[in-house]
Amino acid sequence: MQAFSSPTELQAYADVIVRVGVNLQTGQRLLVRADLQTVDLVRAVTRSAYRAGARFVDVVWNDEQLGLVRLQEASRDSLEQVAAWQPQLTAAHLAAGDPLVSIYAATPTLFAGQDPEAVSTTLRAAARASKPASDLVQRNAAPWVVVSYPTPGWAAAVLPAAPEASQLSRLWHAIAATCRLDQPDPVAAWQQHVQALEARAAYMNERRYAALHFSGPGTDLTVGLVADHLWAGGGAVSEGGIPFVPNLPTEEIFTLPHHGRADGFMRSSRPLNYGGELIDDFTIHFSQGRVSDLSAARGEATLRRLIETDPGAARLGEVALVAASSPVGRTGLLFANTLFDENAASHLALGNGYRACVRDGNSRDDEQFAALGGNLSVVHVDFMLGCATMDVDGIYADDSSEAVMRGGEWVF
Amino acid sequence: MQAFSSPTELQAYADVIVRVGVNLQTGQRLLVRADLQTVDLVRAVTRSAYRAGARFVDVVWNDEQLGLVRLQEASRDSLEQVAAWQPQLTAAHLAAGDPLVSIYAATPTLFAGQDPEAVSTTLRAAARASKPASDLVQRNAAPWVVVSYPTPGWAAAVLPAAPEASQLSRLWHAIAATCRLDQPDPVAAWQQHVQALEARAAYMNERRYAALHFSGPGTDLTVGLVADHLWAGGGAVSEGGIPFVPNLPTEEIFTLPHHGRADGFMRSSRPLNYGGELIDDFTIHFSQGRVSDLSAARGEATLRRLIETDPGAARLGEVALVAASSPVGRTGLLFANTLFDENAASHLALGNGYRACVRDGNSRDDEQFAALGGNLSVVHVDFMLGCATMDVDGIYADDSSEAVMRGGEWVF
Repeated sequence: MQAFSSPTELQAYADVIVRVGVNLQTGQRLLVRADLQTVDLVRAVTRSAYRAGARFVDVVWNDEQLGLVRLQEASRDSLEQVAAWQPQLTAAHLAAGDPLVSIYAATPTLFAGQDPEAVSTTLRAAARASKPASDLVQRNAAPWVVVSYPTPGWAAAVLPAAPEASQLSRLWHAIAATCRLDQPDPVAAWQQHVQALEARAAYMNERRYAALHFSGPGTDLTVGLVADHLWAGGGAVSEGGIPFVPNLPTEEIFTLPHHGRADGFMRSSRPLNYGGELIDDFTIHFSQGRVSDLSAARGEATLRRLIETDPGAARLGEVALVAASSPVGRTGLLFANTLFDENAASHLALGNGYRACVRDGNSRDDEQFAALGGNLSVVHVDFMLGCATMDVDGIYADDSSEAVMRGGEWVF
Repeated sequence: MQAFSSPTELQAYADVIVRVGVNLQTGQRLLVRADLQTVDLVRAVTRSAYRAGARFVDVVWNDEQLGLVRLQEASRDSLEQVAAWQPQLTAAHLAAGDPLVSIYAATPTLFAGQDPEAVSTTLRAAARASKPASDLVQRNAAPWVVVSYPTPGWAAAVLPAAPEASQLSRLWHAIAATCRLDQPDPVAAWQQHVQALEARAAYMNERRYAALHFSGPGTDLTVGLVADHLWAGGGAVSEGGIPFVPNLPTEEIFTLPHHGRADGFMRSSRPLNYGGELIDDFTIHFSQGRVSDLSAARGEATLRRLIETDPGAARLGEVALVAASSPVGRTGLLFANTLFDENAASHLALGNGYRACVRDGNSRDDEQFAALGGNLSVVHVDFMLGCATMDVDGIYADDSSEAVMRGGEWVF
């Protein structure tokens, strides 16, 4: 592996992850989940965490290549097997209030050429096994953050035309810019940026829109919001009262759509990488909240399998607004990685909704959350529709409306 | 990482590990424990295991560098923290009768320069936490095997005078030779070799010696054996009835010394790598089974800390005989890795004894095992005394004796 990041840059990134991302407190245990290929960042995060007073840093490693070996060699009737200890360990860790760093750096086309039915079986089984852990994440039971780091397979997918020798360093430069590592004091820059996003969420919370309307090329979609929805963005606060920033980078504010009130159609503005397969140039029609039709130039079968995961996978769990001019959008890159692409453009998510996006949501059980209009599913998959020609309007309960975004940019 | 092993050799090694080492049965789950640096072997073992019918291959990865980061950065009062889930997971896996592959490839001098007290604290805490898993291993609750694979740090320690570019491939050649991968049918060669070791163990079992006497340069030591001791070697049989080969390579036969009957002194014939520190050129005196004095040209403080781990760490748990002309000895290399060095020379172990080495041992609890003369400890650390000038005699209960080895070689 080439040394594409300088030790100084790497440690600055690790410090932002530890001090801003999970806001690690002295005496906490830190859990890191990461692919083997991100070892340099894991070691830097470990160093940063001990310097910040971590009592212990525990790492659960993954090797994405083993997933490929399995699909190539394992008996078809064994594909529902999972490593159940991984989500159990994560859940126990979060339930104790200790922070989680997830480094997500999947090779976007890893499973291209594998039997999609087999891929889908393994993903569905993993999602089911992960539910106790994902529920705790979505409740913000403890501080958590998702970050990324260049790997050869991912960098090649983002920068296919660049010389192979420069792909990793160019992707790293893009990540460093979107993560504000080029600022004189990255930790301070993040604190300021998070405040700005929180101010925007506060504005939207005052409006009390009943729905949002998206219009743009190939898109004419109304998304109803639950009655007591809360806009979130920038930082969050864990159940134990610790402020943290769950995604680095983050440029979005987001809230909870009503699972039964999406009508119209939308066209994707960016491809979606789902479990090693790319879904691109797709249109989804919604009727009364549910996907009623879809088509995709690439990966249509994968998209269909995704929405068939369970009943909630065909309904919306998140609506998020991002200015088209965000630092991520400005890189001009297609990252094929939701963490970045969702921060380049306004987006929706199929699947489970965030309890933190409805008043008193964290104290509701599944049934109560669903009764409020919150969506339940084992999956939560973001997909992008925002672009520089997208308009968004806020619609009040009396059907009057006002502009929220014009040409992909905020009007306030 | 250079590609120092050809895919064919690597797959042959993986097949020996899966088919001879743990003798994987269709439908079993396989657990692999390995350092990140051995990823090529882990992937080959995974492929081989699925081809042999594994239902699922689960891997618990370790990064030895994180241990170093911790010693450099973590607060001194946090060093007793452990990743308790690792031994818990291993224990649950073994208790279900499913096989375990451990790939051991530590950099011998990783912790050189670190505070030995701190190193010892982390090792002791890890050993304590691992006891439930090590107990199941020592009882052969399920098939298990320890194997190794070249890493840059290890290869540099074994072949310090070789050009850096050739260290990995030279170490790999030595491993391939000692693991019989150069035979036309390595799996068949292993089956034959294991039978030969088992025949030697059967011969020793018929003799019913009360003790062994070792004499050689710097060594004059009598080691008492427990009354119903059993010599083992080559293969073992799991509690579920599956034959397996717990070490690759293996050239030893071994049994259970009496924890109270070692008297005399021994001088090491090879260095001992303990938790990242090298202990070399040492002499240990025993009196009534217990270490009564010791000195070492290097690592004396580490050796003292080892025997102070718990009361059993200062007594013997294993005595093993290996011909000085074994394939491992013939490489002429000092591996600084017990898996190899213990198969180059006769040796003893400080710490816990193997229940399988006394009649009905697996059905005894700790108290009963100790009453038979078996030693109890959280550690089990082999150290070598055998060499080409070592004589070993078997001593009967009536004090008569006969030759077992002369000049490091078997007399039968």
